[in-house]
Amino acid sequence: MTGSPGSRMAAEMAEQPQRLAALLDRAEEIAATVRGVLPDPLAATVLVARGSSDHAATVGAYLLEMATRRPVASASPSVQTVYGSDTDLSGCLVVAVSQSGRTPEIVTSLERARATGGRTVAVTNDAASPLAQAADAVVALEAGDEQAVPATKTVTAQLAAFALLAQGCGDVGFGAEVRDRVPDLVEEVLADPDPADEIATWLTGRKRLATVARGLLYGAAAETALKIEETTSLFTTGYSAADLRHGPIAVASTGLPVLALAHPGPAAAEVTELVDDLRERGADARLAGPLGDVLPWPGDVPEVVAPLLAVVRAQQVALALARRLGLDPDSPVGLAKVTHT
Amino acid sequence: MTGSPGSRMAAEMAEQPQRLAALLDRAEEIAATVRGVLPDPLAATVLVARGSSDHAATVGAYLLEMATRRPVASASPSVQTVYGSDTDLSGCLVVAVSQSGRTPEIVTSLERARATGGRTVAVTNDAASPLAQAADAVVALEAGDEQAVPATKTVTAQLAAFALLAQGCGDVGFGAEVRDRVPDLVEEVLADPDPADEIATWLTGRKRLATVARGLLYGAAAETALKIEETTSLFTTGYSAADLRHGPIAVASTGLPVLALAHPGPAAAEVTELVDDLRERGADARLAGPLGDVLPWPGDVPEVVAPLLAVVRAQQVALALARRLGLDPDSPVGLAKVTHT
Repeated sequence: MTGSPGSRMAAEMAEQPQRLAALLDRAEEIAATVRGVLPDPLAATVLVARGSSDHAATVGAYLLEMATRRPVASASPSVQTVYGSDTDLSGCLVVAVSQSGRTPEIVTSLERARATGGRTVAVTNDAASPLAQAADAVVALEAGDEQAVPATKTVTAQLAAFALLAQGCGDVGFGAEVRDRVPDLVEEVLADPDPADEIATWLTGRKRLATVARGLLYGAAAETALKIEETTSLFTTGYSAADLRHGPIAVASTGLPVLALAHPGPAAAEVTELVDDLRERGADARLAGPLGDVLPWPGDVPEVVAPLLAVVRAQQVALALARRLGLDPDSPVGLAKVTHT
Repeated sequence: MTGSPGSRMAAEMAEQPQRLAALLDRAEEIAATVRGVLPDPLAATVLVARGSSDHAATVGAYLLEMATRRPVASASPSVQTVYGSDTDLSGCLVVAVSQSGRTPEIVTSLERARATGGRTVAVTNDAASPLAQAADAVVALEAGDEQAVPATKTVTAQLAAFALLAQGCGDVGFGAEVRDRVPDLVEEVLADPDPADEIATWLTGRKRLATVARGLLYGAAAETALKIEETTSLFTTGYSAADLRHGPIAVASTGLPVLALAHPGPAAAEVTELVDDLRERGADARLAGPLGDVLPWPGDVPEVVAPLLAVVRAQQVALALARRLGLDPDSPVGLAKVTHT
């Protein structure tokens, strides 16, 4: 059964407040889950993910490093799966993230991690999946079946899950009083789609786009790039503010469209200064968020919540732009729900 | 003193065989350096770098994971420098890479790493720099003064340094018989600039470009993207083959120009298959390297050498395209040699 273009994506986006509320209600259970497998002492945390899940993991890497005060590595699965290296992960917490729990490379990486002594957690939407079965512990997202190819409700669930995992290991500012506000904050953003339409108008006819952020929002900038790219075929790249200054900023002079994300907090000044700098160099730069001129979201919440709100904004932009371009965001050109790499 | 456009970059590229020969001659010294600081047991390795240095570190991460059989993390400096988190790096090998040794964020990160128990190595072109002074051990690249803004000879030196550091920790196939061939192989590529001119012709007038590779060559694909982007203002993004399949491949249908890199070895098949797939989807994809149709380099060497050769090819393309566009690659628009982030 198919509806109008993007009807499934829109429906799954709309489920997010209730899905997040249900997940956040399990905060104590998820904290206990991670504490039950956390090595002591902890050598390092290793995250295994691809695509949108990897962007949630990028945010999670910051939070888990702050919470555990130990380094966090983003796994290079190909070290094992391509080169056959047998990395010893004893003393490591290994968190593998896959919506389906069926991406072969992710499952293989978790199996190898566990076999070499890693303490493994599967974050997945399918608690019966091979990934879940292979892990020491499972964080079931319980976001419901996701049918649209662009992941939406599972990404915000992954972001919430990482915040809960981190809060289970140490205080990252995601206590009950903050968590309890999240569903309503997401609802507030969803109820206000006009700013996304404005950005869709701005992007119509473009051939390229850069997104940029710093710190906790960097993963959201990467996810914004991917969501727009996969649904609309607009060539989009997500940068960290620091990396953008190391060379790519040269492209600003060509009138590059740039969508920057910032939230009140210690990372904000660097992004707002970058936006000014980009504009002086000739870029068509817009600043999203509570400090910006486009795509607002509530600013009176700790930055740990901001990636969730920014990603919902990105979903709205992707949906609006795809529809405007006459595309069906539910089934982007040539993409499948499970990627085999 | 200024010469013709790109004269400094070209001169620095031409120095690479001799600079690499001198560095590779110090293989035993560098192996002893890393063994002298390597924690036992090793919790994890943490790499700290930005820009081109970070791309060398991306290759280094694969090699060091293979050599140490322990996880390798790419540091998120902002966890410390922006959020003030005090990550404990006891038991960790920390390798910080900066051509100048003066990028404040990198210096601060290394200082904090050492203060929390990390065993620190500075890889830098300036053995008297703040980064070198702050570290437990120094790998001096001794590549000579680099005046052109786009890093060239220091990047290949960093790539060689990572291979030497890894070989000092375990066998990654970079023994003397392989090392001894490197200067001549680089010379062979430098002596054959015509294939880069061909790619410059292909790219003239383009507004966007994707580069892609898998495994050891992924860092070279990222560096290829940056080198072209910073010298020519062509909006270019480097992807891993696996990440490209997770959404961005949708852009292929818009005729996206893609430059893929592959070298004979276990990662090659995935890249050659991806190129075929990209072409079927409508991308204008070219395959560089010994298995490809463009930008050849010697194929009868182990893959550990391939990033060096691919990066020299990228330098040639950036130089040729910048000159063709009437730009001076020595001083790209608005870029400085030391980036303050």
